[in-house]
Amino acid sequence: MEIKEITGGVCAPKGYKAAGTHCGIRYSSEKKDLMMIVSETIADAAGVYTTNKVKGAPITVTKENIADGKAGLIICNSGNANTCAPNGEEIAKKTCELAAAAVGMKAEDVIVASTGVIGEPMAIEPFEKGIPVLASSLSADGSEDAAAAIMTTDTVKKEIAIEFEIGGKTCRIGCIAKGSGMIHPNMATMLCFITSDAAVSADMLRKALKDDVKDSFNQMSVDGDTSTNDMCMIMANGMAGNDIIDSEGEDYDAFCEALAYVTRYTAKALAADGEGAGKLIVCNLEGAPDKDTARKVARSVVSSSLLKAAIFGEDANWGRVLCAIGYTDAEFSADKVDVVMRSEKGSVTVCLDSRYAPHSEEEAAEVLAADEIIIDVDLKDGDASSTAWGCDLTYDYVKINGDYRS
Amino acid sequence: MEIKEITGGVCAPKGYKAAGTHCGIRYSSEKKDLMMIVSETIADAAGVYTTNKVKGAPITVTKENIADGKAGLIICNSGNANTCAPNGEEIAKKTCELAAAAVGMKAEDVIVASTGVIGEPMAIEPFEKGIPVLASSLSADGSEDAAAAIMTTDTVKKEIAIEFEIGGKTCRIGCIAKGSGMIHPNMATMLCFITSDAAVSADMLRKALKDDVKDSFNQMSVDGDTSTNDMCMIMANGMAGNDIIDSEGEDYDAFCEALAYVTRYTAKALAADGEGAGKLIVCNLEGAPDKDTARKVARSVVSSSLLKAAIFGEDANWGRVLCAIGYTDAEFSADKVDVVMRSEKGSVTVCLDSRYAPHSEEEAAEVLAADEIIIDVDLKDGDASSTAWGCDLTYDYVKINGDYRS
Repeated sequence: MEIKEITGGVCAPKGYKAAGTHCGIRYSSEKKDLMMIVSETIADAAGVYTTNKVKGAPITVTKENIADGKAGLIICNSGNANTCAPNGEEIAKKTCELAAAAVGMKAEDVIVASTGVIGEPMAIEPFEKGIPVLASSLSADGSEDAAAAIMTTDTVKKEIAIEFEIGGKTCRIGCIAKGSGMIHPNMATMLCFITSDAAVSADMLRKALKDDVKDSFNQMSVDGDTSTNDMCMIMANGMAGNDIIDSEGEDYDAFCEALAYVTRYTAKALAADGEGAGKLIVCNLEGAPDKDTARKVARSVVSSSLLKAAIFGEDANWGRVLCAIGYTDAEFSADKVDVVMRSEKGSVTVCLDSRYAPHSEEEAAEVLAADEIIIDVDLKDGDASSTAWGCDLTYDYVKINGDYRS
Repeated sequence: MEIKEITGGVCAPKGYKAAGTHCGIRYSSEKKDLMMIVSETIADAAGVYTTNKVKGAPITVTKENIADGKAGLIICNSGNANTCAPNGEEIAKKTCELAAAAVGMKAEDVIVASTGVIGEPMAIEPFEKGIPVLASSLSADGSEDAAAAIMTTDTVKKEIAIEFEIGGKTCRIGCIAKGSGMIHPNMATMLCFITSDAAVSADMLRKALKDDVKDSFNQMSVDGDTSTNDMCMIMANGMAGNDIIDSEGEDYDAFCEALAYVTRYTAKALAADGEGAGKLIVCNLEGAPDKDTARKVARSVVSSSLLKAAIFGEDANWGRVLCAIGYTDAEFSADKVDVVMRSEKGSVTVCLDSRYAPHSEEEAAEVLAADEIIIDVDLKDGDASSTAWGCDLTYDYVKINGDYRS
């Protein structure tokens, strides 16, 4: 299927507008801290959420609101996670009411999200101030402002949009996301908002998203921590005019392929911008006995603190790759593993059959002197494969997280 | 039971001698890299080992050698892990032969261990050179040299000995250990050698050690990585003259209590000296529905990279404690958690019933300006408790591991 990257982010699909503003949750007026995405018509919607037992109040409220598979508006703040706060649910519900009223919608059709510090009381006043501003500045060019408003320690905005065809009709998917620290399998502090103008039933959206995240967002790790507030939400308003996708088949497969393009791009971008990260680490895992094992082993490699520190130091310490493979909690043989490290600078085979493969340290160091390091691992124990994304562990990670709140 | 700390380390129990030397596995002749502990008589012995699928050759050989529950000598080198090396088992076996011959023992009664870089070929020559030196310098004062020879990135020697009574007879347990990086539940790069002059059958030693590590070495974490080479070995030669402990009962309980004293002291010392660590973090977990859940939650808290970085920054970011509790893979309620942070500088209640507890940031910062930070967590969801030990995440961790091999 042909997929074309286009501009416009979450506003690229037909019928979406967005805006971002500073409403005062954060001290610095330079930093936007509230955003809104609105669909012209109520869309089918689905979400996946953090698996953390401690959940932000917005997650509880959003789950209730989209239980009917419908939503038309996303509102999200940064600067305060609205988690473990005394009045969290009340504030989240009130936020939905204010946002809905501002655009003439029902509060039950609002998706609400928050990211930031856990445990600090949340006030309603910044929302009362910011929501009217957002409503009056909603625009088809607003995706970038919205992407900026959800950033925390992110250093770059994450935004993408694509165009593709379903049954002869041009459809679009747009996405903005924030990540950085605490990104780990199972929706760790990341927020991802996906819009589409394809017509897809809520049931099929739910299935598509649930299956997709197994190989996208759940395959990336920044620091092994999983957060309280993460969610990945999708809305599909059907304005592209395709026949509604309400069962599996060719159209559904096309939609999933397009969705995968967007989510993999985003997962990679989130890992590359992990807190303090200097290098993206990609592990391509092959030869696993089954898909789930392939995913686990790939994740284990990109999650190892020791390997992440070695990659930061541009040290081809392949023993740490073997070690991380070895402590994966899954059934497979670790006796005949091949490991190749590569980048735009070249490629070096460092391990064959779980033993040292003769190579020069200088050559290996040169390969590692790049921003994107690919580690190809072949377990030679089956046909399943998977990819995981992570980043190096740097002085800056420690700096950022040693003093996050000040 | 009265337990008295004494000097002498692994040589404090009757009938043990030890020595450490530089044999050339490491380049620097300043750093001892080979050690030996010998019992006058063949002892009952037991061990617990890494759960990593990639295992060092010495582990395979040691398991074979103590399958009969007997051992009389421990030999261990640092500088090379003898793991994923082409001739690993051959070298490990030859090492046992050389060591046994030097003291007039059988190779099958030798415990062999290695720690250091994974995947580098291991030569026999340094052992041929060093073993005779060790054999001729064995001494009742040799524990410190032995402890020094197994250190890698450790900054201090870990050594303890205690005296206690079993059935009116004075018995002793001694211990040396090394740890630092890659320390995580389930025997991650740590080596621990325990000697005793108590009479305990191999079966009961095995049971005592297996049960003990659940609440000692498996409850500490430095970086979440688990290594290929770790082992905790115990020898008991019976020279104290107590009635042999070959079943559960009062004597067995006394032995276990003494063993627990030694292993908890050592676990704490290993965590405090984690790679680059500036602070020890102790999590005392109470109110869990069952013991296993208590262990898991306590471990989750001390393992969180985000919390570790916050403690480094002396930031009482209790939301990260809640977050780490929340992503523990166990069944319990996270809705009514109390959290107190304390140190020799004072104590501050930061969270009550999973909500912010009013406290001053200044007071909290003062509490955290200490070398040992205790985090008391009460889940209020049962009666089980557990303790876990970890350390902060510092610039030095990244530095050490970014360039370990050079």
